[in-house]
Amino acid sequence: MTVQIERPQAGDRERFRTCNYYDGTGHIDTDPARGRISVESHLRVRSDVQLAWQVFDPECSALADIYSSLGRCTAVIDEEVHRLHGQRITAYFAGHGIALHVMTCRAREADKTFGMVQRIAAFLGSLEVNRSEPVLVVGGGVLTDTAGLACSLLHRRTPYVMVATSLVAAIDAGPSPRTCVNVGTHKNFLGTYHPPVLTLVDRSLFATLAEPDFRHGLAEVLKMAIVDDFELFDLLDSHGGDLVAARLARPGSVDDAIVFRTLRSYLRHEGPNLFEVFQDRPHAYGHTWSPGFELAAGLRHGHAVSVEIAFSATLAALLGWLTSAERDRILDVCQKLGLAIHHPAITDVDMLVRAQQAMLAKRGGGGLWAPLPRGIGGCGYVPDVSLSLLRSAIGAHSALCETRSGCDGQDMYTR
Amino acid sequence: MTVQIERPQAGDRERFRTCNYYDGTGHIDTDPARGRISVESHLRVRSDVQLAWQVFDPECSALADIYSSLGRCTAVIDEEVHRLHGQRITAYFAGHGIALHVMTCRAREADKTFGMVQRIAAFLGSLEVNRSEPVLVVGGGVLTDTAGLACSLLHRRTPYVMVATSLVAAIDAGPSPRTCVNVGTHKNFLGTYHPPVLTLVDRSLFATLAEPDFRHGLAEVLKMAIVDDFELFDLLDSHGGDLVAARLARPGSVDDAIVFRTLRSYLRHEGPNLFEVFQDRPHAYGHTWSPGFELAAGLRHGHAVSVEIAFSATLAALLGWLTSAERDRILDVCQKLGLAIHHPAITDVDMLVRAQQAMLAKRGGGGLWAPLPRGIGGCGYVPDVSLSLLRSAIGAHSALCETRSGCDGQDMYTR
Repeated sequence: MTVQIERPQAGDRERFRTCNYYDGTGHIDTDPARGRISVESHLRVRSDVQLAWQVFDPECSALADIYSSLGRCTAVIDEEVHRLHGQRITAYFAGHGIALHVMTCRAREADKTFGMVQRIAAFLGSLEVNRSEPVLVVGGGVLTDTAGLACSLLHRRTPYVMVATSLVAAIDAGPSPRTCVNVGTHKNFLGTYHPPVLTLVDRSLFATLAEPDFRHGLAEVLKMAIVDDFELFDLLDSHGGDLVAARLARPGSVDDAIVFRTLRSYLRHEGPNLFEVFQDRPHAYGHTWSPGFELAAGLRHGHAVSVEIAFSATLAALLGWLTSAERDRILDVCQKLGLAIHHPAITDVDMLVRAQQAMLAKRGGGGLWAPLPRGIGGCGYVPDVSLSLLRSAIGAHSALCETRSGCDGQDMYTR
Repeated sequence: MTVQIERPQAGDRERFRTCNYYDGTGHIDTDPARGRISVESHLRVRSDVQLAWQVFDPECSALADIYSSLGRCTAVIDEEVHRLHGQRITAYFAGHGIALHVMTCRAREADKTFGMVQRIAAFLGSLEVNRSEPVLVVGGGVLTDTAGLACSLLHRRTPYVMVATSLVAAIDAGPSPRTCVNVGTHKNFLGTYHPPVLTLVDRSLFATLAEPDFRHGLAEVLKMAIVDDFELFDLLDSHGGDLVAARLARPGSVDDAIVFRTLRSYLRHEGPNLFEVFQDRPHAYGHTWSPGFELAAGLRHGHAVSVEIAFSATLAALLGWLTSAERDRILDVCQKLGLAIHHPAITDVDMLVRAQQAMLAKRGGGGLWAPLPRGIGGCGYVPDVSLSLLRSAIGAHSALCETRSGCDGQDMYTR
């Protein structure tokens, strides 16, 4: 006979809460005759995303609201961001009477290692950061991946606040629950699910980004538009290259809607499924085959993604999920934004098959579940892409691209 | 205005499940006017503990039930366990027609490093272990900590099955959600919460343990008895040293009840609070001050724990939570089991204060919440232990131990 046992609780349970950002519950079932005890336990995570403006301006209270009561702020800051904004950051916390402890980090793809995670953790440990005190992380995608993992491992779960300084970090890698490091040649080989408790999206910081660093991030915006938000797609089509020139950093403009809609599309799929329990994930569009060639081809992440976006649009058209007019419009908008739509890598069928196999393991072995657009603004999932379908799509996409000029992206290579 | 948005779901959602062992749900709240999106997400983890007997006997179906349908088993095995039981393990899987891939690991405290975690992860990666395929871990506490962390990081969450070969692993570290590594001199500095999906507790494996390796694990049994289960305490008192001689490995004996009751006590507190959201954790009894001296004093883990158990009993008596008779009985049972009740380290008040500070950060800064017995079988939590109370307890405990002989534990040092 199974007996369910709730957890015995001391009175006034809230006194014993470890950290206000997390909650949990559970019970056990005991079956003495069978010598079995079953545990069921729940974790609740909250993660907020807030559009902000000039977060290091003394008038902006977003960071002071969090750190004033703690009396200090322990921060991990990208060294390039610190070079550009360090004085303002220092002045901000000094002005609010908050002691600031800073570690600066070089944060290139080659730095995404366990060594960096350990250095960050050692810094946090040396200051005796406790597990209810959010660490501040200021930087782009690489820093959120590594510092997020360090926070995830410190005390087994320490909260952090992300100030996203790149477009990719602001609308994808920053609020993402996925932390990770590369191990050897395996990109993002190890990691955890540990989203920031708060991501501040401050577009004023985009203004100092170099054009190539900004542009490729638009692939993640376009991705969400194609598979989830037709109106957002229309905005990208209408405004095209202007968005690059302005870095989406114009307050009170169409930039507001583009960033908010992208975040809403991304988070309504990602947020309730933070732990990737289910694989119907439209935001994985552009990310099924591209991990197989991004590093080898030397492409910036966004251009690798856009090559897959364009290729997958052709594939979706072969399946009858897009009309040829819809497919062509997707390719048009990629090109308006200066994003690559073709690369020789996408014609290497053996590589694509290997990439599929790796992704199948990562997605749990039950299906490839490659997200593809079903009409612009909709999404379907393909459980398996056969070798013959891959070959047809390669041929069709190459033929299509031969009829277009400028299939390369602008500044598509990392160097 | 805030609008709550559920996750859009494709039909037949179960098709998209990543792994049968985990579940999750959530929603987002959007407030376009304030530029805010709030995510709330839930993870449900199940973790079973099963008493088993001779799990590598061909007749025992526990492991075959899991791995037959997968057709293979990827195993990480303690090298000493493999030396003793490797042939039986190989024969077991061969007999069931299951391909077995084994990595053996030396698993001493000094091996509990990120290097070992990366080696284990690389082994699993080389076999393309997917994230719905449970890894098999066979060993003691160090291996569950490190291999558990490797599984936690691989694909950000890969399930594992634990065959616990030591007493500590069977009733504490094995079913525990806590994975970890040491970093430099910081014990258990970094880790995650990632319990096995199944822990098999096979006491027949204890029979090959050396007496000192077995004995110190009884401190974790005694710990749960004192703060949660008076009848279990009575059993330990009645059977004392016999339990050591028999290694708790006698089927159909009092050993059954002792192991099951220990697991039930441990899991009814730990299981529903797997993510340590709350700090009213009786199983932390013996683990507040001892991390401050275990390594420096060169004590086996269980003896460091029993020194704190005894010291804390004296402290509880000073607070009026135990009668002097109850306190003395706790010390008596420690000694019957050959566990240490005193060590010079426990008289170093500065060290105890430093240990408290580190534990305060680890427990979130809201209180020390040191668990102490309130009567034998009950537990209370002290939010703060003042310097003067610490000094009084040190004096009282030392005086008490002077009246007793044999305050050292048997084979209490690691070498």
